[in-house]
Amino acid sequence: MTPDYGKAFGLWREAAADPWAQYTRHEFVEGLRIGTLPRTSFLHYLVQDYVFLVHFSRAWALAIAKAETLEEMKIAAGTVNALVNEEMQLHVGICAEAGISEDQLFTAVEERENMAYTRYVLEAGYSGDFLDLMAALMPCVMGYGEIGARLAAEKTSEDYKDWIGTYGSEDYQSMCRTVGDMIDAAMARRIGPDFEASPRWASLTHKFESATRLEVGFWDMGLRGA
Amino acid sequence: MTPDYGKAFGLWREAAADPWAQYTRHEFVEGLRIGTLPRTSFLHYLVQDYVFLVHFSRAWALAIAKAETLEEMKIAAGTVNALVNEEMQLHVGICAEAGISEDQLFTAVEERENMAYTRYVLEAGYSGDFLDLMAALMPCVMGYGEIGARLAAEKTSEDYKDWIGTYGSEDYQSMCRTVGDMIDAAMARRIGPDFEASPRWASLTHKFESATRLEVGFWDMGLRGA
Amino acid sequence: MTPDYGKAFGLWREAAADPWAQYTRHEFVEGLRIGTLPRTSFLHYLVQDYVFLVHFSRAWALAIAKAETLEEMKIAAGTVNALVNEEMQLHVGICAEAGISEDQLFTAVEERENMAYTRYVLEAGYSGDFLDLMAALMPCVMGYGEIGARLAAEKTSEDYKDWIGTYGSEDYQSMCRTVGDMIDAAMARRIGPDFEASPRWASLTHKFESATRLEVGFWDMGLRGA
Amino acid sequence: MTPDYGKAFGLWREAAADPWAQYTRHEFVEGLRIGTLPRTSFLHYLVQDYVFLVHFSRAWALAIAKAETLEEMKIAAGTVNALVNEEMQLHVGICAEAGISEDQLFTAVEERENMAYTRYVLEAGYSGDFLDLMAALMPCVMGYGEIGARLAAEKTSEDYKDWIGTYGSEDYQSMCRTVGDMIDAAMARRIGPDFEASPRWASLTHKFESATRLEVGFWDMGLRGA
Repeated sequence: MTPDYGKAFGLWREAAADPWAQYTRHEFVEGLRIGTLPRTSFLHYLVQDYVFLVHFSRAWALAIAKAETLEEMKIAAGTVNALVNEEMQLHVGICAEAGISEDQLFTAVEERENMAYTRYVLEAGYSGDFLDLMAALMPCVMGYGEIGARLAAEKTSEDYKDWIGTYGSEDYQSMCRTVGDMIDAAMARRIGPDFEASPRWASLTHKFESATRLEVGFWDMGLRGA
Repeated sequence: MTPDYGKAFGLWREAAADPWAQYTRHEFVEGLRIGTLPRTSFLHYLVQDYVFLVHFSRAWALAIAKAETLEEMKIAAGTVNALVNEEMQLHVGICAEAGISEDQLFTAVEERENMAYTRYVLEAGYSGDFLDLMAALMPCVMGYGEIGARLAAEKTSEDYKDWIGTYGSEDYQSMCRTVGDMIDAAMARRIGPDFEASPRWASLTHKFESATRLEVGFWDMGLRGA
Repeated sequence: MTPDYGKAFGLWREAAADPWAQYTRHEFVEGLRIGTLPRTSFLHYLVQDYVFLVHFSRAWALAIAKAETLEEMKIAAGTVNALVNEEMQLHVGICAEAGISEDQLFTAVEERENMAYTRYVLEAGYSGDFLDLMAALMPCVMGYGEIGARLAAEKTSEDYKDWIGTYGSEDYQSMCRTVGDMIDAAMARRIGPDFEASPRWASLTHKFESATRLEVGFWDMGLRGA
Repeated sequence: MTPDYGKAFGLWREAAADPWAQYTRHEFVEGLRIGTLPRTSFLHYLVQDYVFLVHFSRAWALAIAKAETLEEMKIAAGTVNALVNEEMQLHVGICAEAGISEDQLFTAVEERENMAYTRYVLEAGYSGDFLDLMAALMPCVMGYGEIGARLAAEKTSEDYKDWIGTYGSEDYQSMCRTVGDMIDAAMARRIGPDFEASPRWASLTHKFESATRLEVGFWDMGLRGA
């Protein structure tokens, strides 16, 4: 069963159904589920994902600067903190076991698909407002939540259970719900409760869909390996 | 008769009626009209206004980066060009006659009231979207238009006729109408035709009003002199 | 004895000696020290300072987005967290005792001097890089540290001991030293160890000095009262 | 003979020699030179390049906001104007002949490689300062100049003479030299005349090289066709 992360996300997910399926049902994800993903591909992905999280944290930090309520500020600040001090440690730990140091992670050469997504999100945030930034950020936040929840239920191999456990955990799921509620409130506050009827909705949905397409590219890159 | 610069501006002007009157009927403006403004105050103002226009041009440039349509880009780009290559020349010319070079203008020490307004506008633009930037920019653009139009009709002295002629000119008035139409279209495009009923309207109006209050400070500074 | 918050700050402080003295030895500060500051002025200041801290947190959040090392990101993220979840609570607590709720604080009308400083800092950060942002942020961070340290040693009244205790505390002093070290490292990393010999030094110093002048205005506003 | 577009560019070009060769000697470029590039590939590229120019103009507009001298502002403002009102018309004209309207151009679906480059440039500009933005912009500006100059001398087919004529023209070449001089001056002003010895040089060169790699991806996309 697909988890419920709020109204805006639900509508975006539906509007971008095709790229969303390509992203959340990607061959890379299937490889995590059944354990056929080569370890070198996974490590390559993990190194790139660490660099991704650096920029992702910067994007959430930008959200603090673009927030309009104390609640929005607190949720975004808490997320930055969790990213910098917790989620990135998952990567540091697994990579350390494989002999890759945190310094090597921080200075790894970014693949083009990686740059493509993070810069898209940051630019959407800089050029637009809080809602534009959220629309571009959500495919990552919620997509990983949805994949994590599904794989936690469906996985047939233990090979990637740490990764699956991180995103399938109640902690991560709860964060997705909190962020989803915050976005619904941010929409209502700025656009109104029927935000999906606003002319602006199309451009927000477009950002969500573009970012989803860039997530597909990220898995492609992961699969391709080093 | 108050000129008509479009719907959004008209509503903002009404909502901020008190500071708007303080700004457009300021003692400094009255001094321009009847010629009692001391020349040293005027020159002090003009030097500060040159620095103001540097940052004002930067704000309009930011509007290009934040535009969503080719039309918005073209109007903003044309405005930057007119500012950098024309309006600033009025200041350069008058100041040159008074022995103040353009280099001195560019590097003049900014008064606090000057910094207050320009940074407010730029920050509203960086943190928000195109509409937030426009709401903060309009008190200057439209206020000078309204003052120019009134003083062109009412002035009793020739002392400041160049200044009055610049902002009362059909060129400037026509620019105000074009910008006003562009803003109405930008509102309709992003919020809908009844944009004043949107929850966002209050925060846009707040930006317009804050910027108007900062314009009052700018005249205060002009009056105070060097 | 003046506390040592690092090399860059020491040089900036010296270069901006006059406004720095006006700021750190302001009549408002003296009123805190000897307890003659009227309670209404203090409360007025505190309400404005709360709004200030909202934008100050946003500026530190922007520093995360503009950081280039993990260390910079972590220090900035920690500061945002401390601001949003701790320092602002000092204000909330004192104001609550005086019957002012946090909602009232968050939506208080900003005085012009308040807007002037926070928007200057944010704009310096958006338009420039990490160093420009730091130069504009430091007068607040380090000035409060210096005032706090001095008043903790010199105060003759208990009236404002909570305020003095906050900024004079070892926690706050230690934060100033950490930030000072981080800035020296950021300078060395981007400009080189002799950063004060770089052509860029003048423009950074100019930002520090402008921000210090705006801090003077902030105390003026506090003194003026509601 | 390779044209001379200034010192900074020359050093960057040398430091990024491999990706630079992949970019300026790309199979797509060879197809333009000898006329073997399929027309459908060219049109696909042209539509994407129009969207590219929209974002490229936004990046140059951001450069105005980030400029520190009047000269920098004027050159950037002139470039925005030339882009919006001239270079984009080349695309509009050729596409119109092929039955593609300007509205269709403006709203064309961006390919991932296109987003990757433009968002990288814009984000480098938003997060960094004027120099960071210039380093990321230059591969496009100067690369097209270098390709245009070479193909104007070496071309063996008339099929793409309009495109070659645009970038090989004295107008475009002169613009490259003006921009190159402006960048050298901007470097000297902010870092010093020996800017290549500054610690910052590596990170600027990294931006130039990353952007060059993204240009290679843009040609790949062009070659792949619709």
